[in-house]
Formats: sequence, structure tokens, C-alpha cells
Amino acid sequence: MSEKPKLGVGMVGYAFMGRSHSQAWRTLNAAFDIPYDIDMAAIVGRTPEKVQAAAATLGWRSYETDWRRLLERDDIHLVDVCTPGGNHAELAIAALEAGKHVLCEKPLANTADEAREMAAAAEAAAAKGVRSMVAFNYRRVPAAAFAKQLVEQGRLGQIRQIRAVYLQDWITDPEFPLLWRLQKDEAGSGALGDIGSHIVDLTQFVTGQRVTGVSGITETFIKQRPLEDGTGVGEVTVDDAALFVARLDGGAVATYEATRFATGRKNSLRFEINGSKGSVAFDLERLNELELYLTDDDGPVQGFRRILITEADHPYLAAWWPPGHIIGWEHTFTHEAYDFVTAIADGSTPAPSFADGLQVQLVLDAVLRSANSGADWTTVETT
Amino acid sequence: MSEKPKLGVGMVGYAFMGRSHSQAWRTLNAAFDIPYDIDMAAIVGRTPEKVQAAAATLGWRSYETDWRRLLERDDIHLVDVCTPGGNHAELAIAALEAGKHVLCEKPLANTADEAREMAAAAEAAAAKGVRSMVAFNYRRVPAAAFAKQLVEQGRLGQIRQIRAVYLQDWITDPEFPLLWRLQKDEAGSGALGDIGSHIVDLTQFVTGQRVTGVSGITETFIKQRPLEDGTGVGEVTVDDAALFVARLDGGAVATYEATRFATGRKNSLRFEINGSKGSVAFDLERLNELELYLTDDDGPVQGFRRILITEADHPYLAAWWPPGHIIGWEHTFTHEAYDFVTAIADGSTPAPSFADGLQVQLVLDAVLRSANSGADWTTVETT
Amino acid sequence: MSEKPKLGVGMVGYAFMGRSHSQAWRTLNAAFDIPYDIDMAAIVGRTPEKVQAAAATLGWRSYETDWRRLLERDDIHLVDVCTPGGNHAELAIAALEAGKHVLCEKPLANTADEAREMAAAAEAAAAKGVRSMVAFNYRRVPAAAFAKQLVEQGRLGQIRQIRAVYLQDWITDPEFPLLWRLQKDEAGSGALGDIGSHIVDLTQFVTGQRVTGVSGITETFIKQRPLEDGTGVGEVTVDDAALFVARLDGGAVATYEATRFATGRKNSLRFEINGSKGSVAFDLERLNELELYLTDDDGPVQGFRRILITEADHPYLAAWWPPGHIIGWEHTFTHEAYDFVTAIADGSTPAPSFADGLQVQLVLDAVLRSANSGADWTTVETT
Amino acid sequence: MSEKPKLGVGMVGYAFMGRSHSQAWRTLNAAFDIPYDIDMAAIVGRTPEKVQAAAATLGWRSYETDWRRLLERDDIHLVDVCTPGGNHAELAIAALEAGKHVLCEKPLANTADEAREMAAAAEAAAAKGVRSMVAFNYRRVPAAAFAKQLVEQGRLGQIRQIRAVYLQDWITDPEFPLLWRLQKDEAGSGALGDIGSHIVDLTQFVTGQRVTGVSGITETFIKQRPLEDGTGVGEVTVDDAALFVARLDGGAVATYEATRFATGRKNSLRFEINGSKGSVAFDLERLNELELYLTDDDGPVQGFRRILITEADHPYLAAWWPPGHIIGWEHTFTHEAYDFVTAIADGSTPAPSFADGLQVQLVLDAVLRSANSGADWTTVETT
Repeated sequence: MSEKPKLGVGMVGYAFMGRSHSQAWRTLNAAFDIPYDIDMAAIVGRTPEKVQAAAATLGWRSYETDWRRLLERDDIHLVDVCTPGGNHAELAIAALEAGKHVLCEKPLANTADEAREMAAAAEAAAAKGVRSMVAFNYRRVPAAAFAKQLVEQGRLGQIRQIRAVYLQDWITDPEFPLLWRLQKDEAGSGALGDIGSHIVDLTQFVTGQRVTGVSGITETFIKQRPLEDGTGVGEVTVDDAALFVARLDGGAVATYEATRFATGRKNSLRFEINGSKGSVAFDLERLNELELYLTDDDGPVQGFRRILITEADHPYLAAWWPPGHIIGWEHTFTHEAYDFVTAIADGSTPAPSFADGLQVQLVLDAVLRSANSGADWTTVETT
Repeated sequence: MSEKPKLGVGMVGYAFMGRSHSQAWRTLNAAFDIPYDIDMAAIVGRTPEKVQAAAATLGWRSYETDWRRLLERDDIHLVDVCTPGGNHAELAIAALEAGKHVLCEKPLANTADEAREMAAAAEAAAAKGVRSMVAFNYRRVPAAAFAKQLVEQGRLGQIRQIRAVYLQDWITDPEFPLLWRLQKDEAGSGALGDIGSHIVDLTQFVTGQRVTGVSGITETFIKQRPLEDGTGVGEVTVDDAALFVARLDGGAVATYEATRFATGRKNSLRFEINGSKGSVAFDLERLNELELYLTDDDGPVQGFRRILITEADHPYLAAWWPPGHIIGWEHTFTHEAYDFVTAIADGSTPAPSFADGLQVQLVLDAVLRSANSGADWTTVETT
Repeated sequence: MSEKPKLGVGMVGYAFMGRSHSQAWRTLNAAFDIPYDIDMAAIVGRTPEKVQAAAATLGWRSYETDWRRLLERDDIHLVDVCTPGGNHAELAIAALEAGKHVLCEKPLANTADEAREMAAAAEAAAAKGVRSMVAFNYRRVPAAAFAKQLVEQGRLGQIRQIRAVYLQDWITDPEFPLLWRLQKDEAGSGALGDIGSHIVDLTQFVTGQRVTGVSGITETFIKQRPLEDGTGVGEVTVDDAALFVARLDGGAVATYEATRFATGRKNSLRFEINGSKGSVAFDLERLNELELYLTDDDGPVQGFRRILITEADHPYLAAWWPPGHIIGWEHTFTHEAYDFVTAIADGSTPAPSFADGLQVQLVLDAVLRSANSGADWTTVETT
Repeated sequence: MSEKPKLGVGMVGYAFMGRSHSQAWRTLNAAFDIPYDIDMAAIVGRTPEKVQAAAATLGWRSYETDWRRLLERDDIHLVDVCTPGGNHAELAIAALEAGKHVLCEKPLANTADEAREMAAAAEAAAAKGVRSMVAFNYRRVPAAAFAKQLVEQGRLGQIRQIRAVYLQDWITDPEFPLLWRLQKDEAGSGALGDIGSHIVDLTQFVTGQRVTGVSGITETFIKQRPLEDGTGVGEVTVDDAALFVARLDGGAVATYEATRFATGRKNSLRFEINGSKGSVAFDLERLNELELYLTDDDGPVQGFRRILITEADHPYLAAWWPPGHIIGWEHTFTHEAYDFVTAIADGSTPAPSFADGLQVQLVLDAVLRSANSGADWTTVETT
């Protein structure tokens, strides 16, 4: 019944990320006023029965078993890449060359070389009006976006210190099997790439500063795990935890830690940022809140205020519910889709770009090089 | 592409509640495994252009301007009543008599008499296999449902004390206009009926005990407000705040408070329940958490534990994301829809029934009678 | 070595309150600049060996076995009454008549009649420059004193709502014996008098409003308990919990609850006070903190700020440690002693006066009368 | 009136630490059952009028202007060193050689060489029954001592990760003057030595593991500050912040950060320790609480429990008030004094020893060497 032009989306992969993105695409038109009618046109998977069932469940009107088919279809304008990092480069580059806008899950790629190729392809595509974005969804947490606004407004003053952690605990059990995520060949790295990438991107986003050098440690606490097929045990070849100190180009110093062994912490992405005039603190387990300290308050009433980020004048929140009615983790993806589609509509450059994704990759590479050297200081390569 | 039978839903009203319910219906099939394919068949509103636009935005495939049309349509199996309380009785009773399952927003009705008629109609319909439910959605907060499980398992022991508040602050500004919600003729009551009803239902649900008598106060702090049309001021004829002590049939004593004047509290529905063996505490602003104290813990490590209610073995959570990935307020409705549809499918009796809605109404009536008497003790009428 | 005049203190009773007051007297000179040299002159108890040992342990330089001896001693200027409420009247009145300043533990007395006599004696003594104060020590929590300042400065606007609880759990075990505190003859009342008195006094202090009427419930959950001598069981004759709604003379409405059955809550005196321009919230278990919400903050950064009440410009704190170095519960007594001694020194009237203590008593009496009537509305008698 | 033998204490220095220690000595006999009667015999300072006044205020019965006098006095059994680190070695060694027990404030010394001499002197003295202890008072926070117990009992399993910060903000103002604490010659180092030493000692104490190597950064954000005499500006020669990653000898990895530039954080010493079976988290601003997570809890009720460390079966707490009545920061010193005096009485070896103090010094030295190398990996020297 809508008179808006359709924007056809084709999504590749329908595991955890695919399910999450589907909820975003399904919700976008209802929540936000965008100039398109989102058409959940096609979902791609290798096994026909499975992908057909997924299409029905998740609300996609067709399915394909070969992602190359999306590039041929005129009703597909945007390709949403939700596969593991290993095939991002091939898929995203082909889609961009076919003139499809590309939203690509993080990490951008498993290697810096692939990421560089993707960034180059994205730049070439942009010249033709074809848009691309890497899916660091936590930039779209309203509290994080609001923290960035506060930094940009100068309310925190000069940013001097960052402490960021991403704490999970899902593999503390030694009987947990040797999934592909715990094998370097397939996953690239462990906690560092999977969740460390988020805190690097997010803190750079909020502060506007970029990591220039690091000293870091990685550790694998449980070195052998049962094979999934029950035939014995195999080596864990990725890190369980990664921790590093860093310097940023705006003068800040930072500690970072990503771990899957923080017993009791389920999804605790936290950052605290201290500026000369104020501080912010955030925890993803309470993503509708931001703690803020301002030295502008008069002395006796200074304190960290818990701001419920649910007001219409907070980023993205005008789309949602009345104050105090919290939103869920899934809407980081709805906001991400909103921002990407809006950029497509108005011809602006969406962020984070593939080049931004590459830069995060180079930070992680520096951490790994430092760790391999025994935690010596290591400079981040420039993109 | 689905082979499940369709369950056609017709929704009446598309304001705040209608938007929320739409998100639930849109999400239900993707999140939960139900034996129907939900068909968002029709939305009803009085103004054709507006309801047409709402249908497009919210994802309904047709619209009607007269709710009676839903009763005639064979593709409508379930009527979702999202209008103000004044016309619930007429609408719900007609729908039930037409053989449509009815999900009815709270309060069940503006008067106990109407609520009684609705409960009778629901009982008659149930005899024919037609289901009905009143939409106290906070029963479907996973943390609340989990608290109920703990009570039922006896882990808290004998329940002795309840303290429950629902705190909001959206009308503290005296320039806030005289909306229909602030006028008795239309709204029935103020904070008491709107949000006090939730805490009465929710604490009764969790504890399994029912309020038998009350002593209460209501207060209207700002007695006159600007008319919406700018022609002057009018009288506020409902309560801004209601507070009462109560006794419950299982021996518990309780304090309750509902207010729209708790400056700084946006949507803070809180309860704490103390039993002989443990306690639980909850706050809707952090709805993914439950605080639990157990005397079974060994002495030195007893403490209120903050449980992140995001595990697959928590109520409703198997449908969602990995641990620590929080869900939003909106999914109280998704869970509500799931429970109702499941009851329809397996022929069980959904709860809370219209009779349950009536019982809550009678508690609120007792509070108003007590307040009108100057806060004398007042017994709750039996249904 | 000091050249300040000595102020000789005689303390009656050395149980829990006596130990606490001793720590205050021992600390006063070191922490605060007062015009006296505090002389811990004498402690009074009935059993010679025990009181002698207590004197040695707690730092008193002499002991007496009859409190009347204090009234005869010239080196005693101030009598600190730390006995149970039953003999406060006799002791305090005699001391005042003997020209000794009197600090009297709460409750002022076990009956309103006795409290009235004490208030009259205090007024007569004041005319002769003899000072008296009732020891509602929680007024001396810096966070509470600061909250009062904020109210007086108008920063919270018109105070409209109060919710106050004092939650403990030390008698939830049915095997806990029938102490004197659980017997009406000796204790006067149960949770209501013991801890309910604190929240009545404290909220009246902070808001500057006084309770005028109440409707309340009391409950005794465990009606029989083992006798202390092991000879059987006896009746519990006081309340385990008391809860009531109230109106205050400044237009506020309130809920109050005092209980010894809030499983898991050890010493949780909490209040939240909502005004037209802001709110404060406090919990004695975190007594160095005050939560404050101000509508004067610009919209998007409004939130409850957690203020660490440890700055030199907070009440009493200049005497203590650097910011962030918290103080303990015991220093409510140090501050109380400081305020009383300061009033003695400068000839001002210390607060809370015995008349204030009487007024609290009358509120509690009204609650008991209401509870005995089955929770009907009951007006507080005027002093 | 006591029949216990006197233990004469002579304290050198009466600034912040001296005030704090005085409160401990003044309180010790009243709170704890020890086999001595503490005699606050003498306080030492250079300026006669000032030290005389301090003695009167803080409760010392005599004063000296030369610390060597303490060594000659027979009524002095214990010397409490509360001066800056620069003269600890001379003072402590002389006292030990004179047969006086020595409690020495941290840091043990400003250089590792001095610390080595002190450790040697302490060992020699111990052979003669003369005791010594370095005053890392945070080991005596009950919550920290309880955390250590949990580790020792194996309740947390194998300790794998530590994150520790000590956050303050008292010099963020660029107009804050160039105190001696900001000058390397006098203070040795900045945040690292002053507060970083605490988190190194405390986490080693709790986990039983020792730091073996580090990579770290130090930063001075404000490089010039006003001179105290108003004659211009001078160079800040110590660190404002220090952050490092570390490995410990039991296999744990860690991040540490000490800063005086964490705007809004007043005295936030925090640690979180993750083991294979549980985790603990602590914040000095809420020192009466410990958060504990145990995987032994049954699945759905696992969560971080906030334990109020105020029960009689928690370390040190039997000496204090009823449950929920919190104690203040100052009693870390009371507990420290208690432990030291108890060790003197029963002839056991108090901890932390001077050798322990030396080991912490060597960790800090490694951090400085790493920072000076540009954050390369640096091994901690063995004592």
C-alpha cells in the first residue's frame, strides 16, 4: 500500500547475525520514516531446505542457494553480508562491482590484505554512487552515539583516558567443544577479532581519536578441547583473551581487554572515557543507560548521573517508545540499517566505511604482532 | 512459503498500544515456533487516510474504518483491542459472540459493571472454544515470570511482604495540557488505573496471593491545566498519585504506589517481595535483570544477586539472543502474543482471563472508595 | 595538654548504643574543632565488674553503678542516656533538673505521657541554659543533612511525595528467641518504634513537613518464639512490620514501612523524596552517597546523579578524609555529639528537641491506633 | 584501669597518614580484644608548637621534635612511620636496630636499593623477635580479606584474569599547584607509586600470585604547574597516570591502571578477578561490599551477588556493629594495627613484610623501565 520506492535487500547468511539483521529489516519501516519501502527480497544459503525454512521464518520473500544470483537480480539493491569473515572480500567486492550497495558484517576480513582490497573496491564504487558500510553495530547504541555527541560538543573537554573491556564467559567450561570460532584457519583470531574489534572501533568512534601503537598480551587458557565430532581433542589456535595498552593520536592513553573467560560476565562491553571536563561510562548489559560526570555542575552536586537514554532528544529514540521504555540489543541493527539506507537515499557517505574497517584490522594486527613479540611496543600501520 | 495454517489478526486502534502490538505480531513468527502463520490481516481506525497510512507503516495488509467489519471477515480469527477502556466492553463482547478470539488491552473496562459483563461473555465464549485474555503485558517480562517460578518452587518460602511502585513523571510540568487521560469521564481514573493496575496484577501474579482489603490515598497535585485547544484551563479530574497499604489472602502485607509525579523516574515499575527463605527485587527500567536473595546460600556469601535474565533456561529467552544480549520493553507484547496464540492452538485457557481483569478492577475500586472515605479500611469486593 | 575547658560526659548504659556513643566521644576532639576538651568522665552500669571492664575497654576514666551519682558530680556536665526507653523519663528529667545537659537515645520514651513530661522538663531547663537533645542520629548522616540543604535551597521545588522504608531481617528465623525487644512491656513497640521512628523523624527533618494523619497496618508474622531460658515458648507482643500511608502538613503524601522481615535487607533505611523540580534518594547501606535528580539540568543529560558525599563542602565532611574516602555508620554519633556540644557552647537550641521526639512518638501512636482500628484513617495528636 | 601490659606507640609524622593512624590507635582497644593496653605515648614532628597541638588534638600524651628520641625511650615499643618515603629507610632501620617494632607506611622506600636495605634490616630484627610490617592498609579492607579467603578455599577455581584500577581526579585542574607529590625528587613517582602500589599489592595478596613481567605506559597530561609560592610555573616530573599489562607467576594475565586524571572518580580502587569457577569485584568507594559470582550456583540463578561485608563471620567484622551498619575507610588502619599488634603478641610474622614491600617496589620499577623504553616488555627483578 506504500507509494515509496522499494529497496530490495538480499542477505547472505542466516545464522546469529542473519537472524539479527532480519529483525532489523523487518522493523525498519515501522520504526523510522525512510524514503524507501524495504523489500526483504532474498536470503541466501547453501542448503535449499534450510534456507527455504529460514526465509519463511525470518520473513524473506525468496531464497537463493548461490549468492552470485543476487548480483543478477534487478530487484536487489543492497547486499547484506552476514557470513564469516573469510569470504567477505570476494562477496563484497563482487557485489560492489555489480552496483549493489553493501553492508558487511565485521570483521571486514580475516586479513589486512583482503581488507585493503575491499576498501579500494568501496572507494571505486563510491565514485559511482554505490555505498558500503562495515557493520560495527555498537556505534548505533543510542548511549554510545550520545556519548560521541557530548565529546563533539566539547562537554567532556580534552579526552585523556580510555578504559575499554569486552567481557564474555561462554567458553570457560573445558568441555566446550572446538568450534570453528576457536580455530585460527577459519576465525582469523579469537576474542581479539571477535569482540576486541568492537571496543577498538567504538572507543575511536566516541572519542574521535585513533590508536597509533600498542603493547599487548594474548592468552589461551584452555589449549585443547574436545572435537565436535567426538573423535578426540584438538588444539585451540586462537586467543581466549587479549589485553593491551595503547596510545591514540589525540593524546589519549588507553587500556583494552577482550576476553571469553571473564566468569559471570555475559556480554559486558564497557568503556569509560575521561576528559578534562567530564567523563562517560557505559555497559552494554545496560545499554539504555549512560553515566555522565560533568565538572560544570556546581561542586557539591557533582556526581555520575545515570541517564536513561530513552528520551526523544536522544539519538534514534524518537522512533521508539515513551521515556523509560527500554529498547533491546537487536535495535543496534535497526539503527544501522536506518543509517545505511538514509545515506543511500541522500547520497552521503555512510560510516564506518570499509577503510574504517581496515583501520580497525590494522590495530588488531598490531596487537597480535606485539603479543607475538612478547608484548613489545608495536606501531599500528597506516591504511 | 509457510505450510502452517494462517491465523488472521485484526487490530483495533493504532496509537501507542497499537504500535507496540504491531511490533509483536510482526516479530512473532520469526522469534517463536508457533503452529500458525500470523497474518496481519487488518487494522481498524476511524479516519481512512490515517488508518491507511498506519497499515502501510506498521505492516498490516488491509484496513477497516469500522471494527464491526472485522467480525464479518472470515480471514480474521483474532481481534486485538487496543482502544481506550471506554469501549472495550462493547467491542470485546461483540467479537467473542462472533467467535473471534479476543486479546483486550488493560484496563479491562472503565467500570466494574462493564468488566463483569465482559467476564461473563468470556466464560460463555470459552465454552465454545473461543479464547480471551486481558493484556497485562508485564506478566510477560521474563524476569517477572522467573520470579513467579521461584515462588512456585518454594525457593522464597512463605511470602510475607510486598512493596510495589510504578513511578513516572511525565506530567510534573504544570503547563502540560489537560489530555483525555487526565479527565475522569474518558480515562476512568488517573495513575491508579493506568499504572497502578499493572502493579496490582503483577504482584498478584508473582506471589499467587490476592489483595483482600486496602487503605489508600489519592492526590491530584496540579488541579487545573491548560486546555489542549488553548482556550483556557480546565479541571483535572483524576488522581496524579495513588498510594495504599493492603492485605493479601495468603497472609502477606503490602504497600503500593502509582504516581505520575515521581520526578526523574520515567517508567520505574518496581517490586520487592520478601519471603521466609528469600527475596526478589525488580525494576522495569532494567527489565533484563532480577535481584534474588536466598537464605539457602551459605552465610558469608549471602547477598542479592543480580541475575541477567538472558539465558536460554529463563522464561521466553530461548527465542532470543545469546546470554547478555538484552531484549526491549516491546517484547512483553511479543511474549503475550505468543502465550495467547499458544493457548488458542492447544485449547488451554489463557491467563490473565477477563475474570482476572475484573478482579484487578475491583481492587482499584476499593482503593478509590477508601480514598474517598478519607483512607479508611475497605474490603475488596469478590468477583 | 589542651587549654580548652573540659566538658565532662557521663554515659548511662554501655550496650550497642553505649559502645557507639563511646566511639563518638573518643573521636570528637580529634575530628572536630570544638571549644571543649571532651572528658569521658564516667560510665554507669549496674554490675560493678562489668561496668569496670566496659570503662576500661571503651575509654571512660571512672564508672558508677548508680546513675544518680552522676548528678552529684561536678565533673559531669553532660549526661548521655543510652538505656532502653522505659527509664528515659526518670533519668533525663532528673539530670535536667540537676543542671546537666542531656543527650537522650530514641525513642524519647515508651509512652506519649512520659514524652510529654520530658518535653516540659526540657523546656524548663532550656530557660536556665541547660540543653537537651534526642538522639535521632540519622539526621547526622551527611547525605541526609545535604538533602535537607537542597530542600531548603528550593532546589527540589515543592515537595510532593515521600517513600521511606527501614528494612531489616534479623528475626526471620522462627528459632530466634523471645528477646525483650519482642515484648511490648519492655520495648513499647516492635519495628515501628525501633526503626519506624527513624524514618518518620528523618523524612520530616529533610522535607520540613510533618505527618498529620495516617492509615496503617502492623503485622506479627511469627507469633510465638522460644523463651531465652529454654523453658518453652512465649508470645511475641510487638509488631514485626508496620506500614502506613500518610499526609504531611506541607501537602506531601507518603508511604512508610518498617520491618524486621525483609529477608536480605540488613539495615536498609531508604527514602526517596520527589519535588516539583527534583528528587533525592538515599540508602543507609550506602550512606556516603546521595542520588539527586534536577530538572534544571538540560534535558538530554538529566539523570539521577550518584553524589559521593565525601567532599569538604558537604555537611560534616571537612572534618574527615579526602574525597572518596568513606566514613562509617558510627560517625552519625560523632556528628551528633559535635552538634550537641556546639549548641551547648554557643547557647543555641539543639535539634531534635525533646518536643521533636514527642512529636515523632505521637505519629507512631497514631499508626498503632490506626492499625488497631483495622487501618482506618487516624489523625496525629498535636504536641 | 586495665591490667593488660602497656604497648607504647611512637608515631612519626602527623599529616594525612598520621591523622588516620591516630584514629586507629585510639580505637584499637575499644574495638578489638588484644593482650595490650595501647599507650599513645608520643608523636614526633619538627615544629614544636605544631606537634604539641597535634598531640593534643589527636590524643598523644607526649611529643618529640626528633624521632631519634623515640629510640631512647623505654616506654616506646613500637614506631609507626608516617612520613614521606624518602626517609623511611633511615628511620625504620634505626628503629629496628634499637629493638622497636616498626610499622612503616607505603611505599616502603623511594628506591629499590633503600627498600633492599630495609628488608635486610627487618630480617635481622625478626631473628631477635622485633617485628616489622609495611602499611598496605587495603589488605585490611574486610571485603578484600574475604576475597582472599574465597580464593584460598578454591571457590573461584584457578585465577586467570585480573583487572585493577585506582582512579582519582584531584589534579585535573591545571591551576592545581606543583606540590612535592608532583616532583620526582621528593615523591619518587606519581600515581604509579602513590596508588598503583596499592593495586599491585592488593591483587597479589588476594590472588596469591605475583607479577613477573609488564609492558606499560606512563603519561603526564599537564606538564607545567604553578609553583606553590606563586613565583611562576615549574615542571611536573612524575606521572599523572600509569597503565600496564602484566603476567603473574600463577598463570594469570592482568591490566593495571593508576591515575589522578579520571575525572569524577574520587578514590575508586577497583579490582575484578576471574577464576575458572567464579569471580569477585570490588570498589573502594563501596568498601563494605563485595560482588561475587559462583558457577556452583544452579544455572538460572547465577549472578553477581552484592554481599554486604558486615556480618560477624566476615573478616574483622565481629569487632564492629550489627549487620548492615557500615564501617569507614579509617578502619583499614585499625585492622592493620590489630594485625600488627596481634603478631607482636603471639610472636608470629606479620604481613606484608618489608620484603613484600620491596617486591611491590620492583614491580613498579619494572613498569617505569618499560615506560621509559617506550612500553616494551620488562621482567620484574627478583628480590
